[in-house]
Amino acid sequence: MNVELLKQNLRAVPDFPIKGIQFWDITTLMKNPACMKEMADSMYELYKDKGITKVVGIESRGFFLAPALALRLGVGFVPIRKPGKLPAETISYSYTKEYGVDTLEIHKDALTPDDVVLVHDDVLATGGSSLAAIELVKKSGAKKVYANFLIELDSLHGKDKLPADVQVDTFLHL
Amino acid sequence: MNVELLKQNLRAVPDFPIKGIQFWDITTLMKNPACMKEMADSMYELYKDKGITKVVGIESRGFFLAPALALRLGVGFVPIRKPGKLPAETISYSYTKEYGVDTLEIHKDALTPDDVVLVHDDVLATGGSSLAAIELVKKSGAKKVYANFLIELDSLHGKDKLPADVQVDTFLHL
Repeated sequence: MNVELLKQNLRAVPDFPIKGIQFWDITTLMKNPACMKEMADSMYELYKDKGITKVVGIESRGFFLAPALALRLGVGFVPIRKPGKLPAETISYSYTKEYGVDTLEIHKDALTPDDVVLVHDDVLATGGSSLAAIELVKKSGAKKVYANFLIELDSLHGKDKLPADVQVDTFLHL
Repeated sequence: MNVELLKQNLRAVPDFPIKGIQFWDITTLMKNPACMKEMADSMYELYKDKGITKVVGIESRGFFLAPALALRLGVGFVPIRKPGKLPAETISYSYTKEYGVDTLEIHKDALTPDDVVLVHDDVLATGGSSLAAIELVKKSGAKKVYANFLIELDSLHGKDKLPADVQVDTFLHL
């Protein structure tokens, strides 16, 4: 993984979404073909021999790379979405954020007990949505779960919140 | 394009998001590796010789295949999103829906005058969001624009709303 290439092309946006927060904008990586290739190749190399059968992406920025990886691995892609977006029957999981409660959903028939699942999102921050996604995948009966993040915000210790039996890989530590 | 394979795997959900509307659920295509490959291969074959330099996807289901195609074409991916989601400076375009007004945004620095752009979304319905996306790409200065949809709802005549100088391709007519 060419970490420097990605760090050079990642955009830091101050005060987004609220004052005092620095937001890491991955759209500048996505519009750069060399960065796209670097991210996709690194993900493929890391997971090609793990027996992954489905790649799950978390709405919305997790959708940027999860389907592309699924395609490359020759497996299916499954979205985890905010409430009311998935049209068929869902399983949901709610988690507490700093102010209030958020919920994520997965289609009830999206995964099977034979599935080995990779959950992907762009950023692992406090770990709330990541844990919710992993729990949804486990509730769906998947037999093994991996988790992958492009960026981990180390100071927020989100990884400590994730189950110990899930292998978590991150490309950029910020 | 194996239209039958896709039609067989597409899920029709009655009364979603509101009573009386039949929703075409593409998640059943995305979780099926053969359908994923069929869609991605068909898009690649159609656009590989067009000199495309950026693939633009419309939030959120347009993100399922647009980045994967960008990766395969060796070009960048650019998201068009709902208001307040893109962190840097944006251009926006508002359009009228049946009840009220919707707005889409693109990063101001996402495209350049040299870009040949493919705009992708899952469904072309009434054409409101598709036109908005095409207009945003044109306002960004792109020198040529193509538009691609997985599904076109022919009875809604959305294609009539799109500019005549944009080549529009659809895989499934429903």
